[in-house]
Amino acid sequence: MSRFEPDRNEPLLPSLSSLAEYKRLPDEALPQLAEEIRDFLVTKVAQTGGHIGPNLGVVELTMAIHRVFDSPIDKVVFDTGHQSYVHKILTGRAPDFDQLRQRDGLAGYPSQAESPHDLVENSHASTSLSYADGLAKAFALKGERNRHVVAVVGDGALTGGMCWEALNNIAAQDDLQLIIVVNDNGRSYAPTIGGLAKHLTAMRLNPSYERSLDTIKETLGKTPYVGGPIYEVLHAMKRGVKDALAPQGLFEDLGLKYVGPADGHNLDDLTEALWQAKKFGGPVIVHAITQKGNGWDPAVSNESDQMHQSASYDPATGQATGPKQRKWTKVFSEALVAEAEERQELVGITAAMAGPTGIEALQKVHPDRVFDVGIAEQHAVTSAAGLAMAGLHPVVAIYSTFMNRAFDQTLLDVAMHGLPVTFALDRSGITGPDGPSHYGIWDMSIFRVIPGMQIAAPRDESTMRQLFSEALDIDDGPSMVRFPTGAVPAEDLVAVSTREGVDILRDGGANADILLVGAGIMAHSAMAAAERISSRGFTVTVVDPRWVAPVPAVLTQMASEHRLVATIEDGIRSGGLGDALARELRDAQVNVPLVDNGVESGWHPHGTRQQLLEDLGLTVEAIAERITEAALKLPSGQ
Amino acid sequence: MSRFEPDRNEPLLPSLSSLAEYKRLPDEALPQLAEEIRDFLVTKVAQTGGHIGPNLGVVELTMAIHRVFDSPIDKVVFDTGHQSYVHKILTGRAPDFDQLRQRDGLAGYPSQAESPHDLVENSHASTSLSYADGLAKAFALKGERNRHVVAVVGDGALTGGMCWEALNNIAAQDDLQLIIVVNDNGRSYAPTIGGLAKHLTAMRLNPSYERSLDTIKETLGKTPYVGGPIYEVLHAMKRGVKDALAPQGLFEDLGLKYVGPADGHNLDDLTEALWQAKKFGGPVIVHAITQKGNGWDPAVSNESDQMHQSASYDPATGQATGPKQRKWTKVFSEALVAEAEERQELVGITAAMAGPTGIEALQKVHPDRVFDVGIAEQHAVTSAAGLAMAGLHPVVAIYSTFMNRAFDQTLLDVAMHGLPVTFALDRSGITGPDGPSHYGIWDMSIFRVIPGMQIAAPRDESTMRQLFSEALDIDDGPSMVRFPTGAVPAEDLVAVSTREGVDILRDGGANADILLVGAGIMAHSAMAAAERISSRGFTVTVVDPRWVAPVPAVLTQMASEHRLVATIEDGIRSGGLGDALARELRDAQVNVPLVDNGVESGWHPHGTRQQLLEDLGLTVEAIAERITEAALKLPSGQ
Repeated sequence: MSRFEPDRNEPLLPSLSSLAEYKRLPDEALPQLAEEIRDFLVTKVAQTGGHIGPNLGVVELTMAIHRVFDSPIDKVVFDTGHQSYVHKILTGRAPDFDQLRQRDGLAGYPSQAESPHDLVENSHASTSLSYADGLAKAFALKGERNRHVVAVVGDGALTGGMCWEALNNIAAQDDLQLIIVVNDNGRSYAPTIGGLAKHLTAMRLNPSYERSLDTIKETLGKTPYVGGPIYEVLHAMKRGVKDALAPQGLFEDLGLKYVGPADGHNLDDLTEALWQAKKFGGPVIVHAITQKGNGWDPAVSNESDQMHQSASYDPATGQATGPKQRKWTKVFSEALVAEAEERQELVGITAAMAGPTGIEALQKVHPDRVFDVGIAEQHAVTSAAGLAMAGLHPVVAIYSTFMNRAFDQTLLDVAMHGLPVTFALDRSGITGPDGPSHYGIWDMSIFRVIPGMQIAAPRDESTMRQLFSEALDIDDGPSMVRFPTGAVPAEDLVAVSTREGVDILRDGGANADILLVGAGIMAHSAMAAAERISSRGFTVTVVDPRWVAPVPAVLTQMASEHRLVATIEDGIRSGGLGDALARELRDAQVNVPLVDNGVESGWHPHGTRQQLLEDLGLTVEAIAERITEAALKLPSGQ
Repeated sequence: MSRFEPDRNEPLLPSLSSLAEYKRLPDEALPQLAEEIRDFLVTKVAQTGGHIGPNLGVVELTMAIHRVFDSPIDKVVFDTGHQSYVHKILTGRAPDFDQLRQRDGLAGYPSQAESPHDLVENSHASTSLSYADGLAKAFALKGERNRHVVAVVGDGALTGGMCWEALNNIAAQDDLQLIIVVNDNGRSYAPTIGGLAKHLTAMRLNPSYERSLDTIKETLGKTPYVGGPIYEVLHAMKRGVKDALAPQGLFEDLGLKYVGPADGHNLDDLTEALWQAKKFGGPVIVHAITQKGNGWDPAVSNESDQMHQSASYDPATGQATGPKQRKWTKVFSEALVAEAEERQELVGITAAMAGPTGIEALQKVHPDRVFDVGIAEQHAVTSAAGLAMAGLHPVVAIYSTFMNRAFDQTLLDVAMHGLPVTFALDRSGITGPDGPSHYGIWDMSIFRVIPGMQIAAPRDESTMRQLFSEALDIDDGPSMVRFPTGAVPAEDLVAVSTREGVDILRDGGANADILLVGAGIMAHSAMAAAERISSRGFTVTVVDPRWVAPVPAVLTQMASEHRLVATIEDGIRSGGLGDALARELRDAQVNVPLVDNGVESGWHPHGTRQQLLEDLGLTVEAIAERITEAALKLPSGQ
């Protein structure tokens, strides 16, 4: 192998078209490559938006993993796949970053369709150790002893119960070739909370950690150590890396070996730790200390979340370049603070996302009334049940997609006990660039089955405030307010009248032909569709039920006053509003045909919301066409 | 207080009508009471069936808790409420045990309707610490500093991720008056597994534990220590209880104080440990070593699960007294073993219930192909995803009710990745004496929304074997086989013919009036209902779709060949088979009226399956009547 001469005029990244090429690079080239990757990330993500902070934090860590392990024979599983950008670059996908998170472009998460080096496409935290446990068990069972499984997990994700369940199992199986890399930046989304965080901090602050780093630097200096006489250098380093495979509190108590902490921005330190882990022959933790946003000031100095996920920005300053918009989250946040002033029993709960969910605003004025439980949706819900049992009214703010984690707790711990807990579901419905594991299309179906659950879907700023307030008035069971991602409509869609709690947005008059029921944000689509349908000669009434579960009784009556009824919702059709209203009509023997417009079952790729609506046949045009077609088939002369 | 003279001719239990009376008993009376409670439990549960093993294990523990704490000012939360029988006795409900788990009788779990001392009615494991966290936070926020929250949790339940999430939060809040009593019997359902179990065992085997017990015995002898000069005695004891509030590995690493281990069948030891915990003023763990089934040989010597949950039995021998029946679980178990011989890629997963789910049989012949992950349904599912990703076909055997814990993992980790995992859902549908938190009525609705999920519902022994085999043939996504609790029908219900995979059980002939679709076990009800309906002059076809999700396409065609279609299912109506078939009919513009028979939304109390069917309007009579009524309204002359 030729001696590498760093030359800033000859960049490495453009010619890096495969993992094999990366592995052929001499060690001395790696610092330059790391620098190039950082510049590349900052520049590219500036255009598309994406998870810039986390990926800047794992440049060296990902590089080291791919030096030591041999994907795809060895399996590398990223927890919360948003930290896989560097992995994508090293596996030859740098040219695709111009289309990051865009329709037909590179996914923001690992994607099996993109690369044999990608495995787990899921964006939900704390799953990687369980996947790794399964993979490693299978390799052991099949006698494939030379394959390693590497799970890369953030310290924040370790607050999730799944990680505990997995650690408990992994620790009991001495024969698994399983390496758990804890990417410890003291925060995942937000500062990591709880006893675990204190424990990790104690390990980090251990004086021997600093000492070991010094020793490594002294030992190695600028001398390359991989390539030639590797074992000698490794042997020399053994004294350097602190407490290698030594007892380390929490993990050791579970029976897991531990290497670290290693400096997560020092390739030598990381590589050595990973080699030790690889050689060990059983499950082992590698503890790497990283800095989120490392190497780029605008991210490092961002106090809220180190630019965890950003829209497009100016690569020089990190300042957002997109249009300023008033977001749904902001409206919720203001409503929350206002209600908290009126209602002393209101408390807030977040699962490590105080900023993104808007709970932060309440935290600022009433820190004692907000509980950040870590990435722990199950605990969030049952702890809320406990708070409610003692007379408080918790507001649990969780993205719709993550709420699926706590179905059982909502069903039994909250609803079966008739407890007043209000769930605020941000990012419900069709989201977009984050891909299928972020869609909030399930909530109206699965939470609808819960006895006593009441679900509201605001269509604009005013209804958001009203419905949130109405939800907080419910004192004998759970309530849910689901609202979309992005900008709130610039103007409210004002009702012309109301009927038993249902807003009439367009009055089709007596004997109107068609009743359109638009749920939440889809009320706007319903209004636009009504225009088109009426241009075909039908009279159309448009209503927003406001409460989508249970179905307001008056809808059955109103349906019976029309010749056709259509529902429009941004959730899965199976078990959604359409199915529910159809059942109500059956029960009441109201024989009016129903057309339900919702999301068809399937996995829908990432793209803009508009692109997804097109794919799903949920544009105004498609909805209007579908309903008009049904209307044209109605028996004439009624 | 008068000096207590033990007198075996004067039993204490019959006059124990309230917790206040229990608290007034002198300490010297307690051993006699404990003995009486044991006799009482063995005798009473012998008649009704119930969780005998666990409750024999917590006699002294529950007695000690109610001596030290003041319910209902202090809150006592039992994890997996099946261990609350002794609590029920001490709070004045002994006279109700003749009606344990029977309609209008004592619930097998805590019940707020029964007593102000009961809080959490849930039967799912690992929730108590989260409830306790919420309760204690609320008391702290409201300034109610003199209220304590006691969570009683089994060591097995600690393998559940929710406990970890809760511990992580509790440890970070120094001001919570929260006592976690770990009832450590080395097994909850089954021997506790994983790294945690090893850690607890190490603590138990610590020589100082034995020493401390000796010291306590020496110090106390037979001298009563509660009543008079309590602080002096406590002071004297401080040297006795080992390592009180001292660092203890795992828990201490999280920042939690620890008392124990205490002898869980020694009232003095327990009481002292609990007093120390109560006085501490912050969150603390009390580690009590108990023996499941303690004091009754038939339970202690039952190797499978110490008679965790038993049907009625002979109190002298513990032998079951009910009729011997061939159970669904047994049929599944046999099919599993048979398939495993044919399919080398088949592996089994259980969440701490190898015996109750029938996985045990496979474990006996192929121990390396079965993984018991502890009470950890989330990990079970995602670990299965990992196993499948590596080319195996896992069978995850979980009760239907517990499957709700892993909705998100099934959706994203398994289905989104198109992985072949087969879920075997025992106890699906309407169960009975275990009450609402055990009902398996949700699966067909919530798992139906998962893209690619295929759900089968066998009606008898033959279809069980066939459908399980068909499920194992699915290699590109998840499948589910749901089957009921109890005895499998003595005789198979044989199809007269099949049509595109749908079994025709009764052929109504060309131009038949009514199509009955009976899902799984409800196919039997459909056949019986058909008899009644046909006696009213209608011709009736009965089919069993076998696969209930997605709805077989041929059902839409068949519906169009009849004048009325009715579905019969033992799941919730919302989003169930009826809703799904109705949607298919809408989409195909088949305008045949549909009557769906399923479980109405609501919380239905415990009782026999037959009583529940009556409550829910799902007896053969009620179903037949509902369908006949609809048929009578059909336009005549078609």
